[in-house]
Amino acid sequence: MKIYQKEIVLKKAYPRGFHLITQEIISNLEEIKNINAGICHIFLMHTSASLCINENADPNVRRDFLNFTNRLVPENESYYTHILEGSDDMPAHIKSSLYGNFLTLPIKNGSLHLGIWQGIYLCEHRDFSSNRHIFITIIGN
Amino acid sequence: MKIYQKEIVLKKAYPRGFHLITQEIISNLEEIKNINAGICHIFLMHTSASLCINENADPNVRRDFLNFTNRLVPENESYYTHILEGSDDMPAHIKSSLYGNFLTLPIKNGSLHLGIWQGIYLCEHRDFSSNRHIFITIIGN
Amino acid sequence: MKIYQKEIVLKKAYPRGFHLITQEIISNLEEIKNINAGICHIFLMHTSASLCINENADPNVRRDFLNFTNRLVPENESYYTHILEGSDDMPAHIKSSLYGNFLTLPIKNGSLHLGIWQGIYLCEHRDFSSNRHIFITIIGN
Repeated sequence: MKIYQKEIVLKKAYPRGFHLITQEIISNLEEIKNINAGICHIFLMHTSASLCINENADPNVRRDFLNFTNRLVPENESYYTHILEGSDDMPAHIKSSLYGNFLTLPIKNGSLHLGIWQGIYLCEHRDFSSNRHIFITIIGN
Repeated sequence: MKIYQKEIVLKKAYPRGFHLITQEIISNLEEIKNINAGICHIFLMHTSASLCINENADPNVRRDFLNFTNRLVPENESYYTHILEGSDDMPAHIKSSLYGNFLTLPIKNGSLHLGIWQGIYLCEHRDFSSNRHIFITIIGN
Repeated sequence: MKIYQKEIVLKKAYPRGFHLITQEIISNLEEIKNINAGICHIFLMHTSASLCINENADPNVRRDFLNFTNRLVPENESYYTHILEGSDDMPAHIKSSLYGNFLTLPIKNGSLHLGIWQGIYLCEHRDFSSNRHIFITIIGN
């Protein structure tokens, strides 16, 4: 059994929205080629963004995700008390946990084994963030 | 350390709803008997359905999940732009990521180690889908 | 490759709310010191509470999470049919799956490897629960 770990810093600070980062993740994971069967754990080291799996073809899906999510978790609710870091901050924390901050994906025959329509989304919930850090653990034979 | 992988195709196309598939999953995983301590990663290879853990006894729970979820993510919102595949399609993508498309479950003494009330739900968010594919990785001693 | 498993019973029954349990979890996991690189799978054995990762500093964040979540999944909806166990029961099931009931976290150099602002939340969705059981699997070198 092999195990590899590495930290990735995304190549840019993404704006608020849902962004397809499958290729950026894969391009950092040459070690997967050495794994015949295993799992890839992808952990976002933040509390105001998320990772999820969704449709990898139509950019309209990502736009609709953003518009839905902004309505699901509104800004400036009168009952919010964590408000010092801006109106997008507390909603970003909530969105982070609704979508989740980690993925575990299968590895088969030296590649991530995803469904044909599946891609990795970075869900950036802050208006202005920095380059997000992702910590990856690969386990397998 | 042992590792097993296999793809399961669910035995039918489930209608929109929350469906208890614990036994169908377990019946496909004879390899778990060989694992004393480990984890079972269950990965749904789609972007319009979900997997989650919830109550395994009362069918009313699954019905209430469906009715709540349909209200949480409405169809035909005026701002949706991904609309060519039917009114249930974009909501299905959103629901897929809110509940998530994978589970990691503990294995102990040759069995999935779940709480007494816990079962595995397939959350089917499309009205008419096909038999869903699930890719399973078992790791343990 | 090493594997450790253990069941933790939280030291008290928490009230409805979002509770920071990072230190309580870590204090039960001496085995992590023996792991150089690996993962820690933390599985809540219930269907009316959740685990998630979020902000570890300001208690206002946890209060806002509670108030938002109570609004997101209201009690006493006319269409609920699973109502015999109290008005907080069906909402608790739904909230459990929206936030999820398990975490997989990286282990590096003998410690959980979390972002500087990340902590482990127990999201207790029932008004009166018991001491929650958590089953932990550690895998690594």
